[in-house]
Amino acid sequence: MARTLAVIGGGVIGLSIARRAALDGWTVQLHSTTEHGASWVAGGMLAPHSEGWPGEERLLQLGLESLRLWHSGFLDGMPPEVVTARESLVVAVDRADAADLRTVAEWLAGQGHPVELTTAARDVEPLLAQGIRHGFLATTELAVDNRAVVDALAAQCAQLSVRRAGRVDDLSDVDADAVVIANGIDAPRLWPDLPIRPVKGEVLRLRWRKGCMPVPHRVVRARVHGRPVYLVPRRDGVVVGATQYEHGRDTAPVVSGVRDLLDDACAVMPALGEYELAETAAGLRPMTPDGVPIVERLDDRTLVAAGHGRNGFLLAPWTAERIAAELEVSVGAK
Amino acid sequence: MARTLAVIGGGVIGLSIARRAALDGWTVQLHSTTEHGASWVAGGMLAPHSEGWPGEERLLQLGLESLRLWHSGFLDGMPPEVVTARESLVVAVDRADAADLRTVAEWLAGQGHPVELTTAARDVEPLLAQGIRHGFLATTELAVDNRAVVDALAAQCAQLSVRRAGRVDDLSDVDADAVVIANGIDAPRLWPDLPIRPVKGEVLRLRWRKGCMPVPHRVVRARVHGRPVYLVPRRDGVVVGATQYEHGRDTAPVVSGVRDLLDDACAVMPALGEYELAETAAGLRPMTPDGVPIVERLDDRTLVAAGHGRNGFLLAPWTAERIAAELEVSVGAK
Repeated sequence: MARTLAVIGGGVIGLSIARRAALDGWTVQLHSTTEHGASWVAGGMLAPHSEGWPGEERLLQLGLESLRLWHSGFLDGMPPEVVTARESLVVAVDRADAADLRTVAEWLAGQGHPVELTTAARDVEPLLAQGIRHGFLATTELAVDNRAVVDALAAQCAQLSVRRAGRVDDLSDVDADAVVIANGIDAPRLWPDLPIRPVKGEVLRLRWRKGCMPVPHRVVRARVHGRPVYLVPRRDGVVVGATQYEHGRDTAPVVSGVRDLLDDACAVMPALGEYELAETAAGLRPMTPDGVPIVERLDDRTLVAAGHGRNGFLLAPWTAERIAAELEVSVGAK
Repeated sequence: MARTLAVIGGGVIGLSIARRAALDGWTVQLHSTTEHGASWVAGGMLAPHSEGWPGEERLLQLGLESLRLWHSGFLDGMPPEVVTARESLVVAVDRADAADLRTVAEWLAGQGHPVELTTAARDVEPLLAQGIRHGFLATTELAVDNRAVVDALAAQCAQLSVRRAGRVDDLSDVDADAVVIANGIDAPRLWPDLPIRPVKGEVLRLRWRKGCMPVPHRVVRARVHGRPVYLVPRRDGVVVGATQYEHGRDTAPVVSGVRDLLDDACAVMPALGEYELAETAAGLRPMTPDGVPIVERLDDRTLVAAGHGRNGFLLAPWTAERIAAELEVSVGAK
């Protein structure tokens, strides 16, 4: 008889683990709550290069490994339109922003990932504001529609007979041979030692309207007077993110955060001013002290896959593989 | 047997007319649609002085008449908390804005409504941004919670046995002794000659959060580099309005409009930056060529009360009285 696995968490991480384990022959039960989590708000960038920053070498390496999995199998069986962009353009608005850009480019080159800086960013992306010149292209990065990916994974899990169940308040209530804690910021409620804290971020959804300039075809990331902003294409518009600050478990979108995002988005791509502001939300990213997710065994029965911070979508394939390998060990050992 | 009246329009105008007519002994049927109209989005300022502008003498006069009715009877039977402010402070941000302020003040004085200009506006309202000095107080103006007023009027109508019915597409479908067209921008669909057009405006609702500066006690209106903005208190926050432009019947809140409102609101009262952005909406004001509503008889059976522009709430009591008087004439004539 198949061994049983309980996955706790219905976001992109939990769903990816559940799908992978079901394919490996586990009988899987997926526990989720009715509340939207970080996967609902996410921008959906798969962007290890353009998210990179000196000091985060390990995250860059994991991100590149996981991006390869996105390109080679993770999307199998999903509708092609879940992919909404196939490259990223990183640009700088002022001189200090351009200096930051060079810092990242030099660091990436030092890691063996040379990127080519341009001073003609508007030749690449004509929708950029006048005066934006400095940038680089990350040509292997993707963007996905986060909600479409979650829906597709959920449909695949259903086809693989993954059963859905409600929230878990105590691990001892779970009857399964193995348990994976994959519920992001809620993970410490089940395993108090996990150093995961919520980091809030406003994310806006702008919708294209008749008469507007077309939706851009690539992700555009920028530093605007030191503040990072990203513009991620969707079929019908652009996702704009993301502020980043700590404010407990508060998910109210705050005026100052929304203002910064609107100002910065329009500073980078003025034509967005004519789009509809279709949704303002705030998500809580599950952050760890060093920014690297915690994907490991906790005890004989219990594993954790949480703390993915800004990179839940990017790192979902790598996480699912890593957990699958660890589950394989459990099976072998028994 | 009581004569029958059909009121078409479920906003503040239609409800006020229906209530007044029911009190006068008419058997009233109120036709409304399920869509939110201008009354749902409105700021709820009752502000003839601070909305005033040279050339709009007739509107000022109607507004003052109607404000008196708000102060003397129109609110009877409504919960006291529908009133959310009992004065308005009008301020200017830059020198040109201050010049506009003086223009309005001099015009009001010329109409026999002297207002006292101050150069110490922050002594009146300490939440104003540093540097804002010029202003005047309009001490008889009110603000109401638009949605609470609509709910209260609807409850009073129900108590007065006003029946509710659905939308009307053709006046000949309506079986009543008298009909009042009071459905704002939709009025020309029933009576094509009416010169009423939709004028769009974004309106934001900001919600107070723990740790924020308190909700202001009075309406604050300002010109910020030429753009008008108003901040209207609610029990739990502030309504910020309103842009004004023509874009057909489009009610999508647009990025540039929301941006302007957020920027201007924070320029006037920086502490609002910490509030939650709880709602972004756009309403369609029913505007007439001269800004004065059309409240008159159209034929033996048909009256109109529409085209109230920015002043639907302010002018609702006057409109209800005016229609009641006209209906009295019909009864007398038959």
